[in-house]
Amino acid sequence: MTKSIGIGLVGCGIVGTGLLQQLKENASAIEGRLGVPLDVRRIAVRDVTTVRSDLVPRDKLTTDPMELVNDPDIQVIVEVMGGVERAYEVVRAAILAGKHVVTANKALLAERGAEIWNLAEEQGVDLYYEAAVAGGIPIIRVLREALASERILAIRGIVNGTSNYILSRMTEEGLSFDVALAEAQAAGYAEADPTLDVGGGDACHKIAILATLAFGQRVPADQIPTEGIDRLSPVDITFARRLGFIIKPLAVARVAGDALDLRVHPALVPIEATLATVHGALNAVAIEGALLGPVLMSGPGAGAGPTATSVAGDVLDIARNLECRAHSRVPARGFRRVALSDAKLRDIGDHRGRFYLRLTVDDRPGVLGAVTSALGDNDVSIEQMFQEGGWQRGKRSDTGPVSVVLLTHRATERNVRAALAVIERHDAIVAPTQLLRIEE
Amino acid sequence: MTKSIGIGLVGCGIVGTGLLQQLKENASAIEGRLGVPLDVRRIAVRDVTTVRSDLVPRDKLTTDPMELVNDPDIQVIVEVMGGVERAYEVVRAAILAGKHVVTANKALLAERGAEIWNLAEEQGVDLYYEAAVAGGIPIIRVLREALASERILAIRGIVNGTSNYILSRMTEEGLSFDVALAEAQAAGYAEADPTLDVGGGDACHKIAILATLAFGQRVPADQIPTEGIDRLSPVDITFARRLGFIIKPLAVARVAGDALDLRVHPALVPIEATLATVHGALNAVAIEGALLGPVLMSGPGAGAGPTATSVAGDVLDIARNLECRAHSRVPARGFRRVALSDAKLRDIGDHRGRFYLRLTVDDRPGVLGAVTSALGDNDVSIEQMFQEGGWQRGKRSDTGPVSVVLLTHRATERNVRAALAVIERHDAIVAPTQLLRIEE
Repeated sequence: MTKSIGIGLVGCGIVGTGLLQQLKENASAIEGRLGVPLDVRRIAVRDVTTVRSDLVPRDKLTTDPMELVNDPDIQVIVEVMGGVERAYEVVRAAILAGKHVVTANKALLAERGAEIWNLAEEQGVDLYYEAAVAGGIPIIRVLREALASERILAIRGIVNGTSNYILSRMTEEGLSFDVALAEAQAAGYAEADPTLDVGGGDACHKIAILATLAFGQRVPADQIPTEGIDRLSPVDITFARRLGFIIKPLAVARVAGDALDLRVHPALVPIEATLATVHGALNAVAIEGALLGPVLMSGPGAGAGPTATSVAGDVLDIARNLECRAHSRVPARGFRRVALSDAKLRDIGDHRGRFYLRLTVDDRPGVLGAVTSALGDNDVSIEQMFQEGGWQRGKRSDTGPVSVVLLTHRATERNVRAALAVIERHDAIVAPTQLLRIEE
Repeated sequence: MTKSIGIGLVGCGIVGTGLLQQLKENASAIEGRLGVPLDVRRIAVRDVTTVRSDLVPRDKLTTDPMELVNDPDIQVIVEVMGGVERAYEVVRAAILAGKHVVTANKALLAERGAEIWNLAEEQGVDLYYEAAVAGGIPIIRVLREALASERILAIRGIVNGTSNYILSRMTEEGLSFDVALAEAQAAGYAEADPTLDVGGGDACHKIAILATLAFGQRVPADQIPTEGIDRLSPVDITFARRLGFIIKPLAVARVAGDALDLRVHPALVPIEATLATVHGALNAVAIEGALLGPVLMSGPGAGAGPTATSVAGDVLDIARNLECRAHSRVPARGFRRVALSDAKLRDIGDHRGRFYLRLTVDDRPGVLGAVTSALGDNDVSIEQMFQEGGWQRGKRSDTGPVSVVLLTHRATERNVRAALAVIERHDAIVAPTQLLRIEE
């Protein structure tokens, strides 16, 4: 029997099946690259009777992942089962058994990442997770290795395909959030409970991972200011477009003095910016380096094929390490554990930029004066302002409250919010004000 | 003294100085990633008196690269001197001395690549060259490692920044090629002798390298059909735009049955395609994978900072290998030498696609009939046709020859050229026909 690298696959849904397909179809090219074949020796699934694909050999199936973990002929455990607690147990046991691990499990890394990264380093095994951020885009490898010498200034990503899909549909078709969400659910782009995607939580976990890789700092994801796209209205998209912007679901990680500026929120992006051209369920990450300048990567952020490609890329990396006995060649978080520090997050109040404000106003004399005074009192100056509704062709209509849209000059968020606190006490303000950041 | 990785820098122009700057400014982060510092021990330059930067320590300078090659404290030779013959001697000597090599030298790889790749494999040393293609975009690492498990179907790149800059200026400002070239030369984007850039030769060398990494086939660069942007006229850009296209300088590598479809030429790209948004001196590479789908990377294709970042990324990779004694972990061409085959190039006559034809015609009765008959006789059908000049507002003008622009349906290039051969024999055709391919 030829020497081969033994793989144990835990979970065999669409990603696991995609991986089997890719490893089978490209077996000869992969062996041509590695000099040794890969062999998926065992596959653990919850219920063997539900596995239907011809790609899955029946005799390799088991319902017990520990059989894989304890198999001396298996060197690499691929965890694509999903969920957190059971996956954590499998990954932990695998690391303790000296196996290298590949996981595509964002939720696992978000909740138990620190533990398993540290454990993997202690045990001297590799733990790779390219598929956990931006699907088929090899952003983790690029930050961890290709750009490892460079001082990264900023990362701006569209890393949640569900949000980008929904916002794209709202932008293209003028759909409301609820209608676009329902459509995304029907198309399989959004889950029945979409909270983690549309609320920004998923993007928050991902930007935390990217920030650690770029800046060598441990990031408390739960402290990242996070806003979802669920509070956007089609009128914001229309007004933004009129001002020369498109609204995109961004995740941002920037160096801000000795702190990190980390944020997840929908933002107005200039229509000519590269991220403005990333539509539908695509993901993209724009990196800005001190000497490098701007680099953009875009591609499918989810789906069986892209995810399987990233998982398989990790498996090949580990196989190369095994062939050279070079495990722990690259630390899982890019930096050695001793070199990691704890991030100091910049207060969002210190955020400085232009803002889009949409006030809902009962249109009567003196309101605009009160608004502009409150902004001026807080050092916020106005770049553009327009009013929609209420007055039409110089005549008062009876359509109810009107929208007043303001574009500010650069200001700190603290000042803008202080002005808004004053403005919202005015009894002509009849609904909460929409505040959106502009990302230049 | 701390243990460190010893680097010998051969050449200290803007790229070499950029590398010194990056390694110095980010020394602590780099050590945090590698666990060991990098130390540029010696620097070889042609003339020590011309070195002015404070980044270059005088006591490390020499005019003899062989001092670096023979220095037992140097493990990695970085060749950024440029030129071919002297660089070849240095790289060859370095490999034979057991040093690992990083080079940014496209011309060297184009002319002596096979020799030095083979030699490096024989000697078991690493030879990395990320900076040789697409500057700061880590496309080589992505093809060689991140996507190593995937069957790549096609690569379409804008890999010559000079050509993209000139074409962008022609497109934005309606400049002629000559004026745009002169402007690019003044701005430092084009060399005094621009032939290699604007004639397509540089892009041809680069796509040959990418094709080998993607497909595991040795590619004879001198057999790749190559056309430059120098034969484009502003009217082609205008007509293309009217038809919904933008002209971009493309390098294409596609799987076409059991052959490779390799081409370098300006092409009409649909205005909504991602590559259509890559302007100025930027480079971009669009990869299409069988399971992965489309991934795009864009960024600066040249310049000191981007090139230095790619060179330094390679140095860090080699440093990691040295720390693990994992040299030859990844073959320089992605595939083991024994797994490489010789590419069979598809005949350009077999190219199938839509075509843009601009005929220059002495406008008289029967010409269009002859044109359409010749196309029809060769199975080329016409999707759109319009005539510019000659007739104005229903009246014949005396402005001389007219342009007849044709967009064909999908056809083979052989048939289109056969039709053109007939058409060009017609005595009303007063100038050579412009033929451009449409890349969908």
